[in-house]
Amino acid sequence: MKIGIVGGTGDIGEGMAMRLASDFEVIIGSREPDKAVSASTCCMDILQTRGVVSCRCSGVPNQEAVDGADVVILAIPFKHLASTLATLTGFEDKIVVSPVNPMEKRDFFTFVPPPEGSAALLVQKMLPKSARVCSAFNTIAANKWRALDEELDYSVPVCGDDAGAKRQVMEIVDKVSKLHAFDAGPLAVSAMVESLTPLLLNIARYNRMRDVGIQFR
Amino acid sequence: MKIGIVGGTGDIGEGMAMRLASDFEVIIGSREPDKAVSASTCCMDILQTRGVVSCRCSGVPNQEAVDGADVVILAIPFKHLASTLATLTGFEDKIVVSPVNPMEKRDFFTFVPPPEGSAALLVQKMLPKSARVCSAFNTIAANKWRALDEELDYSVPVCGDDAGAKRQVMEIVDKVSKLHAFDAGPLAVSAMVESLTPLLLNIARYNRMRDVGIQFR
Repeated sequence: MKIGIVGGTGDIGEGMAMRLASDFEVIIGSREPDKAVSASTCCMDILQTRGVVSCRCSGVPNQEAVDGADVVILAIPFKHLASTLATLTGFEDKIVVSPVNPMEKRDFFTFVPPPEGSAALLVQKMLPKSARVCSAFNTIAANKWRALDEELDYSVPVCGDDAGAKRQVMEIVDKVSKLHAFDAGPLAVSAMVESLTPLLLNIARYNRMRDVGIQFR
Repeated sequence: MKIGIVGGTGDIGEGMAMRLASDFEVIIGSREPDKAVSASTCCMDILQTRGVVSCRCSGVPNQEAVDGADVVILAIPFKHLASTLATLTGFEDKIVVSPVNPMEKRDFFTFVPPPEGSAALLVQKMLPKSARVCSAFNTIAANKWRALDEELDYSVPVCGDDAGAKRQVMEIVDKVSKLHAFDAGPLAVSAMVESLTPLLLNIARYNRMRDVGIQFR
């Protein structure tokens, strides 16, 4: 299975690529193709140093990351989500994963959803009807993705309206470290999942913790 | 410290009273005083059977549970929250705890906050300015409160604008089983906490689990 990461050289995308590249063929996309190429070289170097011999990872412009992938992960901040999607085409029949959290830092971190109700619902509205949009990975911090020596022992709620796509996304989640996917229901539930991330940032801030995650139990 | 539980004979209040009565003097309030009295008798019987000799628990009308308590917990469903508060007085200078989650079951469970932004913010708006409102205990299921043989090994986000009141509520939380209080920030963050409960109900439903809770880690 080929996983394309739009924004694959960003905060979250970079570590995500490294975590996924030992099990999947990863296509790192970027607005700046040079950065994507060097990120993919760096990713393979790091993985080979760690003894992962079979990793496959390439760096391309965002559009090629969409075109070449079966599953496209939108690893972009909410403020660039709509403008980035507007420049891309070819999402027909693809599985599209949104880990995006619309939030703002005021006196505290707060959930500020778009009129659609959530970032994932905005993605669904902007893409062709045949794109199968899911939300996943919302609460995994960028630092955690990158810290390859640390197990990711967290729960990951996955939302989506297409049962087959959701099952495939849950299988991808379960391949990463000790992440454990939970079916959180239809895509509309993503509003409740996305609002978890600013809550976790507040918990971290007010309890002097770093990169707080969650487990359902 | 005296803890009054408004709605102390309801789903959540009943188990909450039993869990709290071994460490605090608990005043069970109800619209129906007879039910409050029998709930308090039942609570003491159960605790004494379990070897807790020093439990103190009484049953009274809701208003007396407010009047007699230092800390008032509003253990009432959201749909009865405003109407119940409208019948009660005497909240001046009290610590008031809202575990209330405004949600509806449609095709799935969904967070439906009042115009104020959260149930806790609605409580703050309805009560006198000197009442020190916190949110806590939002994600602990009624069945878990009642199952005295089970440890409650969960994280509890606590929100509030008054630092002293929040600290006291966090100390109460930490006394209960293995609950662990986390400062989640000002009361406005309660919107993100309250939306966790319908998310957990969806997780339970779609993964065939019961009474799902959370841990921050």
